Amino acid sequence: MDASERFICGNLGTDARGRLTFAGQDTAALAAQYGTPLYLMDEDRIRRNCRVYTASFAAHFPAGSRVLYASKACSFREMYRIVQQEGLGVDVVSSGEILTAREAGFDLGSAYFHSNNKTDSDIRFAMECGVGCFVADSTDEIAAIEAAAAGMGLRQPVLLRLTPGIDPHTYAAVATGQVDSKFGTVIETGQAEQAVRFTLAQPHVELMGFHCHVGSQVFHEDVFERTAEVMLTFVARMQQDLGFCTRQLDLGGGYGVRYVPGDPHVDIAEKLAVLGRTIGTLCARLGIDAPAILMEPGRSIVADAGLTLYTVGSVKRIPGYRTYVSVDGGMTDNPRYALYGSRYTCFAAGRMDEPADMTCALVGRCCESGDIIEPAAQLPASVGRGDLVAVCTTGAYNYSMASNYNRIPRPPVVMLRDGASRLVVRRETPEDLIRLDL
Amino acid sequence: MDASERFICGNLGTDARGRLTFAGQDTAALAAQYGTPLYLMDEDRIRRNCRVYTASFAAHFPAGSRVLYASKACSFREMYRIVQQEGLGVDVVSSGEILTAREAGFDLGSAYFHSNNKTDSDIRFAMECGVGCFVADSTDEIAAIEAAAAGMGLRQPVLLRLTPGIDPHTYAAVATGQVDSKFGTVIETGQAEQAVRFTLAQPHVELMGFHCHVGSQVFHEDVFERTAEVMLTFVARMQQDLGFCTRQLDLGGGYGVRYVPGDPHVDIAEKLAVLGRTIGTLCARLGIDAPAILMEPGRSIVADAGLTLYTVGSVKRIPGYRTYVSVDGGMTDNPRYALYGSRYTCFAAGRMDEPADMTCALVGRCCESGDIIEPAAQLPASVGRGDLVAVCTTGAYNYSMASNYNRIPRPPVVMLRDGASRLVVRRETPEDLIRLDL
Repeated sequence: MDASERFICGNLGTDARGRLTFAGQDTAALAAQYGTPLYLMDEDRIRRNCRVYTASFAAHFPAGSRVLYASKACSFREMYRIVQQEGLGVDVVSSGEILTAREAGFDLGSAYFHSNNKTDSDIRFAMECGVGCFVADSTDEIAAIEAAAAGMGLRQPVLLRLTPGIDPHTYAAVATGQVDSKFGTVIETGQAEQAVRFTLAQPHVELMGFHCHVGSQVFHEDVFERTAEVMLTFVARMQQDLGFCTRQLDLGGGYGVRYVPGDPHVDIAEKLAVLGRTIGTLCARLGIDAPAILMEPGRSIVADAGLTLYTVGSVKRIPGYRTYVSVDGGMTDNPRYALYGSRYTCFAAGRMDEPADMTCALVGRCCESGDIIEPAAQLPASVGRGDLVAVCTTGAYNYSMASNYNRIPRPPVVMLRDGASRLVVRRETPEDLIRLDL
Repeated sequence: MDASERFICGNLGTDARGRLTFAGQDTAALAAQYGTPLYLMDEDRIRRNCRVYTASFAAHFPAGSRVLYASKACSFREMYRIVQQEGLGVDVVSSGEILTAREAGFDLGSAYFHSNNKTDSDIRFAMECGVGCFVADSTDEIAAIEAAAAGMGLRQPVLLRLTPGIDPHTYAAVATGQVDSKFGTVIETGQAEQAVRFTLAQPHVELMGFHCHVGSQVFHEDVFERTAEVMLTFVARMQQDLGFCTRQLDLGGGYGVRYVPGDPHVDIAEKLAVLGRTIGTLCARLGIDAPAILMEPGRSIVADAGLTLYTVGSVKRIPGYRTYVSVDGGMTDNPRYALYGSRYTCFAAGRMDEPADMTCALVGRCCESGDIIEPAAQLPASVGRGDLVAVCTTGAYNYSMASNYNRIPRPPVVMLRDGASRLVVRRETPEDLIRLDL
């Protein structure tokens, strides 16, 4: 397979000097300017990914439908500014994300506050910030929201998170829609209906509708249609049994993205068109008005807009075993192989004109054997200390999951647009790491 | 099993009010004072764990032998002060750990600098700080150390890290002594001998001896004896073939600790006595002077000196499936279940007088299904929102591996000693999280 076949996204390319380009820019020059390890993000790709959703929603979904960026995928101030400009709301999961959005100037009336466990102080902080809607996970939480809203003299809009009992055929750590889940209230046990009755009885909570999320990195054909059917059937039943009219139905996020050439390409616009028609058909069949539909893409907004650059420190050839290429980052900036066994496409960014004929384990600098970025990277055999390696599709769940294990500072994030680059998250320093130590 | 049988360490107890005590102190009072989630550390236990090593080393090991605390297990300033007072050196793995040790006033002449990939700037920084010895992972790195030392006009002591080809019977992510490893230079392929010849030819590098580390959480009987045999055989061969006299042999770390009652108890003093005798016997048989022995305990110094306190946010009972108890922390402060499937012993800290008759999944607050602390905790059925839960044996690889995923701040660390408590790492705030954002 030559490099062009391994280009899993249109923002990757090669220039005349055999260097990898990303978002049309020379990765070697960016590494020289900002240092490595370095997270690069392609702003046009982020915006284009947003527009796939917003255009499809406008064309195929009921009035009032809205795309919410699941900001846990990649959360720093500039991300909230970009998605706000694109007309998206956001899904936030903590006081930290709420504060980040607020400090970015984001209109928190368009924020939906998730999490299976909101503390009392989180709830108060979110209300003080004017978060538009809470996604309540349980009746325990509804009671806590009621108490806080009563104390502050307001009526808080909420969605109830339900568990539709759908298996999304993804990996266990990111499958959340099954009955046996820490998230949501189960429909099939009758607990969801009890939760609706409980919520409707609270004077300071306004039930807007329901939320569900079946999982992440979903490629399977009909997952969202099956989910919509379960949820809309519940919506119809609540209308019939309780006279409750659902205004918003949030189907969560989860469309899969390509990490390696073997991953399928999901045509999200096409999927959303089919889903929109399915929702229309289901509502007609069930005899209900179509609620506004919300979805929460995270990974499919930012993953392929990200690329990480590293510098090689050593190449270790163990005859009869394996070759290890060690770089200056690793599980601290990208723990996804350690956590999920996730795979990545990798390039020797300065040697794109050489055949990538060496299979090697691309590993990090942490003192831990599990510190692997990609166990079978294809790189040119000439790679050595000082060479640049690019790991693609790192925009989601890399910066946001980064740690300081081994007291390694987190890399900066540089946003690329129109041939220019700008720092949006500065590089952490060793001095930053000891600021909490007494 | 009642609570006393589940007490996996002698620093756990119950007071007259049915509350869990740790290091003799009331955990509920500590939670009230410092908030949750909260890392507690028992300073006496840390010191006692250090003394098991130092006493055994003095009694059974050759002159000059030294215990190095593997500080990646738990790195903040106060840890370096404590282990220095106990007479230990340290194993550091990054500029961040070196800086932390230096800022703690640690004598860096007693520091050994590890990592499979030291950058040029790490190498310079370590030399500027006067780090006593580098543990060099490869000839690439020896060349980089030689260049830096020449530039600074010094001669840098080093150990060469070798791969002895030992399977420690632990889990893959922490097994590092096998031939197929990113760490070290392999003995059986002849690469180790080449590396010795290369190192001895460098004018600004002084080879002190060899290092190896077979893995972590090692319970198997004879792992260190087998390792010592392989390494001392190599030492003898280098003496015979190259006339090289090994002054230091570092056998790494790795003794296992108990997380759950079913884990074996490792009597480290007894193991070290046996190991010391084995080393003496081996050296006599091989006809070599015994080198000074170094070991690098990390987990066995701090793991059982740590305990994490959480507050319950919700209890979710799914009939026919499972009960989920959600707390205000999770994989952000303890990613070890997510990474390794590690198990923990848990208590309802305010309900020690009630039978722990409910099996439940203790889960965190992150928006991720894999955010599990312990999949089958035994807690009283009465546990509900606001209750305290303690997770034991969290002193190693919890604070050091913590992340800000979901923009969740990291908990503080409170050190307990002689009935008093003091903050040694302050609580991170949401404001801290956005300090890097532009």
